[in-house]
Amino acid sequence: MAEPPLTDPQDLQAFLDEAWRHLTRGVADSRAPARYPTFVTVAPDGTPEGRTVALRGAVKSTATLEVHTDVETHKVFALKHNPIAAFHVWVPRSDLQIRLTTRVEILTGAQVDEQWARIPAGSRVAYGTMPYPGTPIADAFAYEKPAERERFAVLRCHVNQIDLVHLGTPHRRAGYHASDGFAGTWLAP
Amino acid sequence: MAEPPLTDPQDLQAFLDEAWRHLTRGVADSRAPARYPTFVTVAPDGTPEGRTVALRGAVKSTATLEVHTDVETHKVFALKHNPIAAFHVWVPRSDLQIRLTTRVEILTGAQVDEQWARIPAGSRVAYGTMPYPGTPIADAFAYEKPAERERFAVLRCHVNQIDLVHLGTPHRRAGYHASDGFAGTWLAP
Repeated sequence: MAEPPLTDPQDLQAFLDEAWRHLTRGVADSRAPARYPTFVTVAPDGTPEGRTVALRGAVKSTATLEVHTDVETHKVFALKHNPIAAFHVWVPRSDLQIRLTTRVEILTGAQVDEQWARIPAGSRVAYGTMPYPGTPIADAFAYEKPAERERFAVLRCHVNQIDLVHLGTPHRRAGYHASDGFAGTWLAP
Repeated sequence: MAEPPLTDPQDLQAFLDEAWRHLTRGVADSRAPARYPTFVTVAPDGTPEGRTVALRGAVKSTATLEVHTDVETHKVFALKHNPIAAFHVWVPRSDLQIRLTTRVEILTGAQVDEQWARIPAGSRVAYGTMPYPGTPIADAFAYEKPAERERFAVLRCHVNQIDLVHLGTPHRRAGYHASDGFAGTWLAP
């Protein structure tokens, strides 16, 4: 079921390159496994929260990921209190788990003109739900979705740490840190 | 692509039943989407952590989920500090996101005799990796996987809260709390 490894299984940088290939493919291809990571934050009361997001940017050279969001969502509220967020991706055909820990910058207004300009008109309604997302409403459809330019935010996520697990035979696991340029080390799986 | 709704879209309990059906199917069928949720905890330093787990139990009447783990994993370390964990499941064919917040009990020793007895011998090596999971090692395969009975733990997860999002046209979102018997309320999506 798993694809055979194309590279030396002891090569930490090849393992890391494979993960970034999946991430960049996720940005380009809506059917790639990394298109929809689970994005994990911590609420002010210490409760962990995960939700599916669409991956909008992934650049290995700057070690950044990008996600778009409505500023009135609970995830932005959580990030204003604790700016550390994790991404989790499972790649079924490669039996690969990709986990990234990031520090998140919340960009809005003129900082995100470029990204807003590229969003198709029909997709802009994802930013502006009234009442705000998560507000109790009288029935399932008692809300509206106008497109609100000032509700659009870009989460620029600076990668601090990467943990990869390949469930091959035998398993391989490696950890990488920004502090040493993502040199990496093998870990017991 | 989405399955047509079989029930009244305004029926909060039918929506909740649909989520529990996916969860119980995940326990029985290794190819069901809920078999491998993302399990989210918070490390002592406040960092959120997600990883794929196998769902081993899901009972609506008691509002509990069950996961098996090695006690020497980082997730158990995190849970001893903060026993609140979240589950995240995305069901592609139903366009349904299931999120559950839980309080986790860590069961070991004689409390888990029954579960241990049912685990096939070949699968028991998931409990006992040496050195402990996450320990730096000299090369990718510098570890062993003996089966260690005393390393086996069951995480019994008591559901406090459920959040469901159906990405149909239009979207539906509902929240449920244990405190009122999961009566539920519609939420702006």
